[in-house]
Amino acid sequence: MKIGIIGLGKMGGKIALRLLKYNHEVFVYGHHRDKIDLMVEHGGVGFNHMDDLIEELNTHETPVVWVMIPSGDITNNVLIELGEKLKKGSIVIDGGNSNYKESVNTAALLKERSINLLDIGTSGGLWGFENGYCLMAGGERESFDIVTPVLKDLSAPGGYEYMGRSGSGHFVKMIHNGIEYGMMQAYAEGFEILKSKGEFHINLDKVANVWQHGSIIESFLLNLTKDMFKDDPDLSRVKGWVEDSGEGRWTVLEALENNVSAPVITLSLMQRFRSRKKETFTDKVLASLRNEFGGHSIKEK
Amino acid sequence: MKIGIIGLGKMGGKIALRLLKYNHEVFVYGHHRDKIDLMVEHGGVGFNHMDDLIEELNTHETPVVWVMIPSGDITNNVLIELGEKLKKGSIVIDGGNSNYKESVNTAALLKERSINLLDIGTSGGLWGFENGYCLMAGGERESFDIVTPVLKDLSAPGGYEYMGRSGSGHFVKMIHNGIEYGMMQAYAEGFEILKSKGEFHINLDKVANVWQHGSIIESFLLNLTKDMFKDDPDLSRVKGWVEDSGEGRWTVLEALENNVSAPVITLSLMQRFRSRKKETFTDKVLASLRNEFGGHSIKEK
Repeated sequence: MKIGIIGLGKMGGKIALRLLKYNHEVFVYGHHRDKIDLMVEHGGVGFNHMDDLIEELNTHETPVVWVMIPSGDITNNVLIELGEKLKKGSIVIDGGNSNYKESVNTAALLKERSINLLDIGTSGGLWGFENGYCLMAGGERESFDIVTPVLKDLSAPGGYEYMGRSGSGHFVKMIHNGIEYGMMQAYAEGFEILKSKGEFHINLDKVANVWQHGSIIESFLLNLTKDMFKDDPDLSRVKGWVEDSGEGRWTVLEALENNVSAPVITLSLMQRFRSRKKETFTDKVLASLRNEFGGHSIKEK
Repeated sequence: MKIGIIGLGKMGGKIALRLLKYNHEVFVYGHHRDKIDLMVEHGGVGFNHMDDLIEELNTHETPVVWVMIPSGDITNNVLIELGEKLKKGSIVIDGGNSNYKESVNTAALLKERSINLLDIGTSGGLWGFENGYCLMAGGERESFDIVTPVLKDLSAPGGYEYMGRSGSGHFVKMIHNGIEYGMMQAYAEGFEILKSKGEFHINLDKVANVWQHGSIIESFLLNLTKDMFKDDPDLSRVKGWVEDSGEGRWTVLEALENNVSAPVITLSLMQRFRSRKKETFTDKVLASLRNEFGGHSIKEK
């Protein structure tokens, strides 16, 4: 089917290429000329200005456009602009990691102009291009049904699902990422204990590899871990500084709002904060207090 | 090859059946007559007394016996008895969840009588019979090489590995289980947050299913979760009481011994302790203290 794509970065570019591979008519716009050219080489139709893309989309019977750009103001502004400029009945897909509450609000705003927003959480990262993505969709069922041919080709077999009303797609994707934080932390701690056991000289590469064949903790993440240790078993090229990109925090906030105890997901996020500091004020307070009450020596700077 | 199996429970019975399927000569002994009979039906040779099995094994060129019984004293006593009664050069496999430190000690004891102990951590649970197990082996390389034909047929393709000296097999399996605790807790918390969001009416069955197709958190455990929610999306038949079987505790103890910070694995274990109590003394202390310092009301019994 005909589909516009806005944003040709790591995710958007791959999504466009996968849709072209499956013979959809893909109309693209992105910030970088070379990315647009790449899509055109693969059979896409490129536009250097978003207005030109919108003009093209408005000639389609039901314009459909997939927005795959950084979440927050950048996404919101583009969605609002699309809402203003696309013709009634258009379907706008936000495939990024927008906060589900914003998706609920934006969907309501766009609905005032009879534009339908689908919030589609997209998992699968860089491997999605080959294996297909996992797509979690929220919004009106009718719009979901219309874009199904695209979802089917983008996703891994069985990897797309209608979750419910507006916001539910990004909500489910948010929780997905929160779980991911906890799983990653569990694996990471396990490997650190293995590595700490000098006397066994455990080969982490071999461990990750064998666990990936028939064990209970087999997973996509462990498969990546395996490849990682194969290349560099001591991870000597990597700094132990861990970023987070929002969904983990939102998952924790959601737990707070709903009075749900989710300590492991919460702690996994906090451990990322800790990773970014050489020294914490907490630890300075603890060291000082031990000195105060017990005369325990402190390491002076 | 010829192999004895002691213990025909959930794991041992399946291991015997899988080896019979792969045309090994399997000599079995277990507590339950009906289990022995079942193995004989499938082509095994059954013994009603361990001494009779040992007598048979001692006629083999290099006796090999797989012990698959509950860890702790039960396993240790059987291993010691085998060490006393098997002929020199025999290979004894402890496939259970023994503490790796006991495996180190027992291996040394058996070695005094020239009996070789392999500690082989066995993962894969009830599904191992069909898919093959994941086997992590510690002990002398020579013994490992001798039993390789058995390990190859028991394991999933690529699912057996030599980890190193005595104890390292059970050590790696222990960490595997510790990681499993953390992963399970992360999934469980995520599903609780999803469920708490009444307004979205999220179908947990659908979520688990779509995540299993192309998402970053795809895993063997999630596959089980998916089946679980399909049968009973509210888990209404299940009490929220979570047992632990030792390896999680040992993983935490190992972290303590090696000064490794493993908070998520530790907390996952503690959450299981919490699950077994309707009310904790901690919470009574907290409620009372809030009452003391702030006059906050307490719920009286």
